[in-house]
Amino acid sequence: MKHALSVTRAEDFSRWYQTVIAEADMAEESGVRGCMVIRPWGYGIWERMQRLLDDRIKATGHENCYFPLFIPLSYFEKEAEHVDGFAKEMAVVTHHRLVQKDGRLVPDPEAKLEEPLVVRPTSETVIGAAFSRWVQSWRDLPVLINQWANVVRWEMRTRMFLRTAEFLWQEGHTAHASEAEAREETLKMLEVYRAFAEDCCGIPVVAGEKPENERFPGAVATYSIEAMMQDGKALQAGTSHFLGTNFSSAQNIRFQNAAGELELAQTTSWGVSTRMIGGLIMVHGDDDGLRVPPRVAPWQVIIVPMLRDAPEDEAVLDYARSLQAELSRQTALGEPIRAMVDARAQKAGNKRWGWVKKGAPIVVEVGPRDVAAGNVAVIRRDRLYQESGKLDTAFVARDGFVDQAAGLLAEIQEALHVEARARLDAGVRRDVTDFAGLETHFAEGERNPGWVEVEWARPTGVALDAVVERLKALKLTIRNVPGTAAPAQGPCIFTGEPAVERILVARAY
Amino acid sequence: MKHALSVTRAEDFSRWYQTVIAEADMAEESGVRGCMVIRPWGYGIWERMQRLLDDRIKATGHENCYFPLFIPLSYFEKEAEHVDGFAKEMAVVTHHRLVQKDGRLVPDPEAKLEEPLVVRPTSETVIGAAFSRWVQSWRDLPVLINQWANVVRWEMRTRMFLRTAEFLWQEGHTAHASEAEAREETLKMLEVYRAFAEDCCGIPVVAGEKPENERFPGAVATYSIEAMMQDGKALQAGTSHFLGTNFSSAQNIRFQNAAGELELAQTTSWGVSTRMIGGLIMVHGDDDGLRVPPRVAPWQVIIVPMLRDAPEDEAVLDYARSLQAELSRQTALGEPIRAMVDARAQKAGNKRWGWVKKGAPIVVEVGPRDVAAGNVAVIRRDRLYQESGKLDTAFVARDGFVDQAAGLLAEIQEALHVEARARLDAGVRRDVTDFAGLETHFAEGERNPGWVEVEWARPTGVALDAVVERLKALKLTIRNVPGTAAPAQGPCIFTGEPAVERILVARAY
Repeated sequence: MKHALSVTRAEDFSRWYQTVIAEADMAEESGVRGCMVIRPWGYGIWERMQRLLDDRIKATGHENCYFPLFIPLSYFEKEAEHVDGFAKEMAVVTHHRLVQKDGRLVPDPEAKLEEPLVVRPTSETVIGAAFSRWVQSWRDLPVLINQWANVVRWEMRTRMFLRTAEFLWQEGHTAHASEAEAREETLKMLEVYRAFAEDCCGIPVVAGEKPENERFPGAVATYSIEAMMQDGKALQAGTSHFLGTNFSSAQNIRFQNAAGELELAQTTSWGVSTRMIGGLIMVHGDDDGLRVPPRVAPWQVIIVPMLRDAPEDEAVLDYARSLQAELSRQTALGEPIRAMVDARAQKAGNKRWGWVKKGAPIVVEVGPRDVAAGNVAVIRRDRLYQESGKLDTAFVARDGFVDQAAGLLAEIQEALHVEARARLDAGVRRDVTDFAGLETHFAEGERNPGWVEVEWARPTGVALDAVVERLKALKLTIRNVPGTAAPAQGPCIFTGEPAVERILVARAY
Repeated sequence: MKHALSVTRAEDFSRWYQTVIAEADMAEESGVRGCMVIRPWGYGIWERMQRLLDDRIKATGHENCYFPLFIPLSYFEKEAEHVDGFAKEMAVVTHHRLVQKDGRLVPDPEAKLEEPLVVRPTSETVIGAAFSRWVQSWRDLPVLINQWANVVRWEMRTRMFLRTAEFLWQEGHTAHASEAEAREETLKMLEVYRAFAEDCCGIPVVAGEKPENERFPGAVATYSIEAMMQDGKALQAGTSHFLGTNFSSAQNIRFQNAAGELELAQTTSWGVSTRMIGGLIMVHGDDDGLRVPPRVAPWQVIIVPMLRDAPEDEAVLDYARSLQAELSRQTALGEPIRAMVDARAQKAGNKRWGWVKKGAPIVVEVGPRDVAAGNVAVIRRDRLYQESGKLDTAFVARDGFVDQAAGLLAEIQEALHVEARARLDAGVRRDVTDFAGLETHFAEGERNPGWVEVEWARPTGVALDAVVERLKALKLTIRNVPGTAAPAQGPCIFTGEPAVERILVARAY
């Protein structure tokens, strides 16, 4: 079978990933260190993700706001752990003007800021300052807000969508009167993320609490959803943090409770970023490029008219356009079908393969003979080939296709999810009961070792550090304590003590 | 008549504007110099504007992308005029790490960037660099893209929504094979902006070309839409620029034409920002607060249940919620009606006035007697009072209200637009034929002098500078040459020469 990409997943997963991004016109290096340009197909997927996740964030009672890009240094100094966690990788604005000097532009020494500003790496501090103004009484609580924004973390090694200096995300921030309510919120948003990843992106995930060493700087508890890439590595695809009173004490978010006493608010924060697009590629891509689940596909049905610079072109284009109009009147997966006619002046075959690489769920080709017979030629991106290796094109009646398109899209959405779910289910080993077994499993040089779920005694402090070091030697990290894991019943694989819970151990992005 | 705000437009328009923003919970100072926090009601209006304008930008064939926040200094050095226009007001990133020093955080001297980065004030340069990679042949043209982003211009005097250091906007950028096509694009997007302002925001505007001295730095021609505020000042509410080959030569955007020769692409750019929200306030606000046209209102119908901590509260809430559900199934102005129940634990009267100040188009109050009688009490924000000065509440049957809600919202949308249009039409004087007349008109100390449309000979260079200075002495600027203005027929009011066109002269934000 010949494939559309120059490299397969099996040959070189990392190069395959970069190739998909390039060939599907999703993103490219910008020339600005660590920053990428997100091109229309990549950004279109992000817009779809935004729309679907935003609906869910609003449906759970949150409102969108917008907070400043810049954070004064003094805000950061207030939360010590938070500073330690972020201070090493922030962009710092020190001047507000440029001047010409020796024919070059330089920061104007006369325009130095009295207090340097940090470009937000995350917004707990500046949003906490706003909360402290908004919250006076228990009647002002809860405060439930979210923002869609760009953030900057000065990463040394970058990788498109997975780790870039600037990235796009949503960050939710809430303040509550009680710890119980804030903890409930943290878990509620974790569940929103799980459902969004699975139902919209077709990405099965394991939701659970992160170990102490993987907590967000300043958090009391951090939860994540972890997705399995096709190379067996884990990708943290969303996090939800219970911050307790760490930020409210630093930012002075106090309220008068019903008894008239002053209390610190309990806060949470949670975020999902453009990283999810990297996950989408590594979960659903194949050796022909990306496959986009219909719910997050910018276009779900691409109609390619076979044009030949001939008089019948006009009839073919009309046929394509009226097909597009008919499809747009149908509802699939709760929304109008997004169908477009690709009338660019290129060979139909090139256009077909361009859309295959981009991963449009359905490509429909129409030529003069289809116009005459009232047919269409349909290619499903999730089942591109017949068993023989031949392209699986279904020649069907146009009316039938229009009637079935919504069902077909729902089927593709489901099929991609089921395929990924089966891979995740098969990819987690649960029978490793000692550290030697873990070493053996990950030392075997298998291309795809997947994940291993083991039991541990949840050590803390230096004992935890020791565990982290032993795992690091195997290039492993603890992903989370799956919320759905069985109870522990044997010894901790690190210490031999009675285990208290099961953790997922994996290589990760 | 008693009003909901502590200051009226007539008393102090500037203080009234700030008061509306505060009392309608739209935005607030953030504590970060020149940056504001956009609160849910303000941001909700922006989200509505985004959705409606984005639909129109996409319908005209543009795709959304995302480009880096940071621009290396060297990119700016390439377009000399552009640098001069922006270099004085940019945030400059010089370091990528902080360290602790004497207990304070400071930029780490070890982490100084080799080339400082500018926080984008606008993205022609960095997008031009991408275009130069994307465009090789005439087949690659046109490139039609847009991005929604934050930008930073280090303004000395800031004013919420109108002039802030950081603001949100969309910036469209396109490249074309011919000047004619690029000029057509520039005017097409100007028309998109005009229609968006008028049809969605209910803000009548005058679209036209800016004079030479008001051009965007680096543009060959700049067009604007100008809106009239209630104090008679003009607000530039959107701009569209024909950039010729100024940026394509600086950024090397070249293509092989059909004859095989290398040519420079012709580019355009165009933008609308959160400034539009400032315009919305100053066009539609009244002495009771904001009035939001239904198309851009986050919530169009607010249902306030009259709760009294009594057993019948549950029935009132049920009644409110089922009313909300019924309304949500109706379509108004092309979209489902956005109705919400305000069930907060506050007095109904406070809630009513809160929503009046926010400018929700319709407020519906329901109490136990309404439940029994199947009625609702309806307040239209655009006609708040009866002639007697009494609040104009309509007590109507619930079913009738549900049936008429869509029509009512369309009527309010239209009424606000018509009112503003009448004000604009009445506010432009066209009979001033000499400079002395202009001086007299603007010297009369009227509170609202409106705009004056006069004839001029379109001087350039130093002659234009002289005109600009004479106007400046009267605190006036040239807004634009209205596309719909009559032809000139008399002398230039500045020079006495035969005039060539008519220009709008006004005080402006």
